[in-house]
Amino acid sequence: MGGDLAPQAPVAACLLALAELDSAHTIQLIGRVDDVAAELDAQLRAAPAIPPGIRDRITIIHAPDVVEMSEKPTAAIRSKPNSSMVVGLKRHATGQADAFVSAGNTGAQMAASVFLLKLHAGLTRPAIAAVFPTARNPVVVLDAGANVDCSAEELVQFARLGAVYADDILGRTNPSVGLLSIGEEAEKGNAAVKEAHKLLEASDLNFAGNCEGRDILAGGSTRGPVDVVVCDGFVGNVLLKFYESVPGMIMAMMTRGGVPEEVLAKIFQGFDYSDYGGAPLLGVKGVSIISHGSSSPRAIKNAIGVALRAVERRMVEHIGRRLEHTAMSRT
Amino acid sequence: MGGDLAPQAPVAACLLALAELDSAHTIQLIGRVDDVAAELDAQLRAAPAIPPGIRDRITIIHAPDVVEMSEKPTAAIRSKPNSSMVVGLKRHATGQADAFVSAGNTGAQMAASVFLLKLHAGLTRPAIAAVFPTARNPVVVLDAGANVDCSAEELVQFARLGAVYADDILGRTNPSVGLLSIGEEAEKGNAAVKEAHKLLEASDLNFAGNCEGRDILAGGSTRGPVDVVVCDGFVGNVLLKFYESVPGMIMAMMTRGGVPEEVLAKIFQGFDYSDYGGAPLLGVKGVSIISHGSSSPRAIKNAIGVALRAVERRMVEHIGRRLEHTAMSRT
Repeated sequence: MGGDLAPQAPVAACLLALAELDSAHTIQLIGRVDDVAAELDAQLRAAPAIPPGIRDRITIIHAPDVVEMSEKPTAAIRSKPNSSMVVGLKRHATGQADAFVSAGNTGAQMAASVFLLKLHAGLTRPAIAAVFPTARNPVVVLDAGANVDCSAEELVQFARLGAVYADDILGRTNPSVGLLSIGEEAEKGNAAVKEAHKLLEASDLNFAGNCEGRDILAGGSTRGPVDVVVCDGFVGNVLLKFYESVPGMIMAMMTRGGVPEEVLAKIFQGFDYSDYGGAPLLGVKGVSIISHGSSSPRAIKNAIGVALRAVERRMVEHIGRRLEHTAMSRT
Repeated sequence: MGGDLAPQAPVAACLLALAELDSAHTIQLIGRVDDVAAELDAQLRAAPAIPPGIRDRITIIHAPDVVEMSEKPTAAIRSKPNSSMVVGLKRHATGQADAFVSAGNTGAQMAASVFLLKLHAGLTRPAIAAVFPTARNPVVVLDAGANVDCSAEELVQFARLGAVYADDILGRTNPSVGLLSIGEEAEKGNAAVKEAHKLLEASDLNFAGNCEGRDILAGGSTRGPVDVVVCDGFVGNVLLKFYESVPGMIMAMMTRGGVPEEVLAKIFQGFDYSDYGGAPLLGVKGVSIISHGSSSPRAIKNAIGVALRAVERRMVEHIGRRLEHTAMSRT
């Protein structure tokens, strides 16, 4: 029921995903059963080509309440235990689902994920990992909005989480981590960043030093390529939303400049955020994928793909192991 | 002598600027007199079409020392009173020059500007104002790197400085100010931003509420158009450098996608940072324009143009009056 386009977009995404996934995979749609069933029936009726087997892989789980997009996260979670957000995450927490995807209230999803799935030992906060497409390989930027006013230790935690994500989901071996700052020198940055620089230098991570704003799309700092860029959630969220607004502006300029739309569409393939679909909330002991409120069916379908990869690659287990290893090597 | 391409680029910029400006305007080149004179002679010899009157409008002021790009700002300023940076700013401070432009060490320029030109009463820090080109009107973003870890009061000061800049230099009447945050609601943001939101609401500024990352290029928030975007210097610097890296990446993608270069050049007109040339250091009692270390002659020429406009529009006087007015209305 979450997001600006529910239940239409999630239901359509579910049908798209199941058509692509092999028959072992099933989806549970969580929400007001009458609304969801009516939407599902309508979409199936409108697309008679969808094989009947698809419907059998969908279960509708009733959740009478809805967390609205504007509600205060913690209050909403407490006052609405029967919301699709809480019911869905609870099913994941109790092993009745392998992953959870939502385009609903991001703050509520974070709060409920931490509350129900719990954080890995050693972590104080979860982080949202966003994938930034570049002209070469995409780069993982985190935190993209789960935290503001981060400590140096939290920035280092984000580095560990991002490294596992880059390895498991993007297939980067021994991923290198850059620290976002305003100069390449160790003494440049705000207080938290300067302290984090020291901690990262001393860590077992493949630290590539400071990254400046211009290094993100270049995919590397002066020290070499970068797979993961670490920053606090204020900076990361501003950057992510800024970057998401660039293609639209460029497309408009190009179209006005006479470049044909089909040429543009081809060039910008891979530059649409809906290609990545969802940003995982890293640090919780489960797979909780956050999609934009305005996500299209295609974006949510791709978010389901991210969830599936995270499960198949055992990302959560790897994060736990990495954090445990770090804790042990400290003692 | 400042910048990666000195003295070639500043000397070439000087010749470009004087050819465009009317004959009342003169330029003082500050630096090692032998090096600068040799460079100037060489450039004049190589371009015999330059009218001889141009040379008469150039004075070379000897400054034997150079602040290197990697030097620590405050130490460099103290230990090199005869550097081109200090000598040039001193001439401006003592009324022997109306404005100062440099592509040298930014930190040193800031430190020397504050030290020699002094801050307006009521300010604790200066701010760098960067102009972000958009598909419509450019937007002023500040602070773009003079400050990290800003207080709420400093963010409000940036708003006042940016409003005068947008009015005087970009010709916006009663410019509207947005506060960069991670959500449009007043309670979204980090501690300093949340507090600044309250102060801005209560101020006499034309406050447009919070801006998200996506609102900058759109030139407006949900409350309406935005001329000035306020943020701390860490966020602003990351964003500025990130944005400056976008055209290069897009151009490369487009060229690879078969879009002819001349079409691109036309579309991207106005998107080159060298069109804006220099970012003024606002808050000091003088005109101190900061150019990129790697500035081309064209970029520095445009920085000279920004300096000229600031002088002609009496920007510094307007900033002083605006801050005084604010101080008075508080008592």
